[in-house]
Amino acid sequence: MTDSAAQILEQQQIEPVLLLGPGPSSVSPRVLQSMTHALLGYLDGDFRKVLSEECELLRRSYGTKNPVTFALSGTGMAGMECALSNLLEPGERLLVGVNGFFGERMCEVAQRHGIEVHRVDAEWGKPVDPEELEKAAKAANPKVVAVVHAETSTGCLQPLEPYARVAKQVGALFLADCVTSIGGVPVGLDAHGVDAAYAGSQKCLGAPPGLSPVSFSPRAMDAMAARKRPCTSWYTDVRLLERYYFGEPAAYHHTPSNSMHYALVTALNLLHQSEGQDAVFARHMANHRSLVAGLEALGLRMLVAEGYRTPMLNSFPVPDGVDEAKIRARLRQRDRIEIGAGLGKLKGRILRIGLMGHSSRRAHVASVLTALAAALREQGYRCSTEEALQAAGF
Amino acid sequence: MTDSAAQILEQQQIEPVLLLGPGPSSVSPRVLQSMTHALLGYLDGDFRKVLSEECELLRRSYGTKNPVTFALSGTGMAGMECALSNLLEPGERLLVGVNGFFGERMCEVAQRHGIEVHRVDAEWGKPVDPEELEKAAKAANPKVVAVVHAETSTGCLQPLEPYARVAKQVGALFLADCVTSIGGVPVGLDAHGVDAAYAGSQKCLGAPPGLSPVSFSPRAMDAMAARKRPCTSWYTDVRLLERYYFGEPAAYHHTPSNSMHYALVTALNLLHQSEGQDAVFARHMANHRSLVAGLEALGLRMLVAEGYRTPMLNSFPVPDGVDEAKIRARLRQRDRIEIGAGLGKLKGRILRIGLMGHSSRRAHVASVLTALAAALREQGYRCSTEEALQAAGF
Repeated sequence: MTDSAAQILEQQQIEPVLLLGPGPSSVSPRVLQSMTHALLGYLDGDFRKVLSEECELLRRSYGTKNPVTFALSGTGMAGMECALSNLLEPGERLLVGVNGFFGERMCEVAQRHGIEVHRVDAEWGKPVDPEELEKAAKAANPKVVAVVHAETSTGCLQPLEPYARVAKQVGALFLADCVTSIGGVPVGLDAHGVDAAYAGSQKCLGAPPGLSPVSFSPRAMDAMAARKRPCTSWYTDVRLLERYYFGEPAAYHHTPSNSMHYALVTALNLLHQSEGQDAVFARHMANHRSLVAGLEALGLRMLVAEGYRTPMLNSFPVPDGVDEAKIRARLRQRDRIEIGAGLGKLKGRILRIGLMGHSSRRAHVASVLTALAAALREQGYRCSTEEALQAAGF
Repeated sequence: MTDSAAQILEQQQIEPVLLLGPGPSSVSPRVLQSMTHALLGYLDGDFRKVLSEECELLRRSYGTKNPVTFALSGTGMAGMECALSNLLEPGERLLVGVNGFFGERMCEVAQRHGIEVHRVDAEWGKPVDPEELEKAAKAANPKVVAVVHAETSTGCLQPLEPYARVAKQVGALFLADCVTSIGGVPVGLDAHGVDAAYAGSQKCLGAPPGLSPVSFSPRAMDAMAARKRPCTSWYTDVRLLERYYFGEPAAYHHTPSNSMHYALVTALNLLHQSEGQDAVFARHMANHRSLVAGLEALGLRMLVAEGYRTPMLNSFPVPDGVDEAKIRARLRQRDRIEIGAGLGKLKGRILRIGLMGHSSRRAHVASVLTALAAALREQGYRCSTEEALQAAGF
C-alpha cells in the first residue's frame, strides 16, 4: 500500500526542490511556519489588523500612496483579469504593448470581456518601442494603455516612464503588469504615473502563490465609479472589495484565506523590516550579475540585451543540438532543481532561470551553474564548470 | 513600539478563537502543519500527485464520478461565479430557487454576466416549493435550474431530488450550491442528478478558506463545449482549467497555491481515511442534536423547522429585548468564541452557531451553550445554564 498525499506531506517525504523557475519560488521557513497560526473570522478585529498591515507594506512595495491597494483572493492571473475588467467596459478601447506571453494574455483576457483591443508588438525579449506605442495611442485613443513591466516569458524589463508618458499624452489610464517585478526591482507606481497594477505573491515578494496584490490610483477608482454598468465579475469587483478591505465597518463579500494572508504579511515583513527593500533589490541584482557572468562563461548568450534584463529571470536560447526538456528533467531528477521552459512561441527554444525572493541566494547561483554545465556536457555540449564558477565570482 | 503582524503571528500571540460561526471553521493542527511543506512547481510530478489524489477524494465528498471535479483557485464565491458563467451565456435563462442570502447572490452574480434570471422565492428559513419551481420552470424553459443545498444564511437544508426532477422535466441542467453541505451531510451529485456544484474548503471539509471544490457532469461539459462564445472569465474558464488539472501533459494556465492544496488534501484524508465519511456525518448530526436540545432548553426557538435543519449551522431568532451584537462581542472578547450574525434581511434578527468540520466537537457544544446562557442573562434574559447542559446531554 502506498502512502497518501497527506502522509507524504506530513512526513515531509518529498525532498524539497530548489525552485529556480519562473515561480513559485522557494520561500523562507518563517513564511511557511506563519501559516500554522490558528484561523480567524473574516471580520475579526485581529485579522483586520493583519490585512491592514499587509496593505500598508504592499503600498511600500508598489511605491504608492493609493488607498486601494490590497491582495486579491486569487493568483496573478486573477489580478490581470480584475484590472482589465474593472478599468474597461465592453466596447471600450485598450492598447497593449505586447513583447511576450503575458502581453498576449492581456489581449486574450480583454477580448473575453468584449473590450476592443489594439496592440503594438515588439520582438519577444525586446522592449516595446515608445514611439510606436505613441502613434498607436494617438490613432486608437484608448481608455487604458497597458504594458508588462518585467515579462516572465523572456526576462525583459522595460522602464515604465516612457509608456506612462504616452498614456498621459492621450489622457488614458496606465496599467502595468508587475507580477515578476514587484519586490525584485523598484516599481514606483506614483513616481512613474501608473494608475493600476497587479502582481503575484509567489515571486520576489517571497510568499506562496495564491494572492494577487493589486493597486488602483484615485483616478482609476474614479473611472470605475463612472462606469455605466458594474464590472462583469462579481468576485473581483474592486468597488465591492474596497468595502470589505477598507470599509468601516467592513462589508462581507467573500471569505479570504487567513493562511495566505498570514504568509504574505510575514514575507512582506521579512522584506521591508528584516532585510530592507534596498538590500533586497541589491541582492537580486548581485546574484543576477553573477549568474549571467557564469552563463556567458558556459558559452551561452542571454536572450535579452544588457540594459533590459530583469534581474529575477534569466533566459537564454538553447544551444544547437541540445534538448532543453532533457536538461530540465536531469536537473529536476538528479539535482532537485527546477528551472523553467519557454512559453508560447519560445517553447522548446529557451530555458529560464529564476532567482526570485528567497530563491535569489548566492549559493543557488553556484548550484544551478554546476548542474547546468554537467547536463549540457551530457548532451555533447563543450563547456567548463570551473570557468563558469570563476566568472560568477566563486 | 508595537509588534508587527508577522511577529504576532510568529509568536502565536493571538490566543486562538474557537470558530463557531458560518465559516471559516477551526481546522486540525495537522492541516495547518501540512502547509509548512516546501513548495513545488505547478507542473511538478509530485505536485500533480497531490492534485490527483485531491480530485479523487473530492469526488467521494461530492458522491460523483464526474471526471471534471477539482478545487478552483478562489473561494466559494469564485466557485459560484465560475459555475454560473460557464454554464450560461449572456441572454440565456437561469431559474433560481431563492430561500436565503446565497440564493439572492446567485441572482445578482448571474445578472452581472447578462444572464436572464428567473426566480422562485420562499420565505428565508423554509425550503423552496418544488411545485412552484416546476410551474416557473415550465413557463421560463431555463437552461439551468439552481438551488442552494444548505443555506448558510438560515441553516435550511433542502433535499436535492425534487428540484433535480424539475430540472430533468424541462431538460435543464441542475446546479447546486454545496458550500456548507459538502462534508457535513451526504451530497450525492450522481444519485440525485446534479450536473454542476460548487463548494468551499473552509466549512465541513476542514481546510482553511481559499479553494472552491467544483464538479461538472459530462452533460454540463457538453453544454460548455456547445457555447457560441467562450466563458467571459478567463481565470475560471472550466474548459481551460480542465487542460491544466487533467491534461496529459498539463497545460499551464495559472499558478495554483501549493500550500492551499496541501491543506485540502490533508483535510480530505482526515475525513475519508482517518475518520470515515459516515462517522463524520454522524458526528455532525449528534452535535447538532445536542446543541438544539440545549438552545431549546434556554427557551430559544430554531429559525428552521425540524426536518429541514442543516446539522452544521444552527440559527435562532434573537429574543425580544436582547442586542445580538452585544452577545457576539461578549463571546468573542470574554470567551474567545466566534458565532455568526444574521445576513441580509436577517441582519440583527438572528444568531448563527456553526458546528462544522473540526469545529463540530462535543466539547464545543458545552462551551457555546455556557457562554451564550451567561451572555443572555447579562441582558436580563432569564435562562439556566444547568438546564441547557442537561438537555444537551452533559
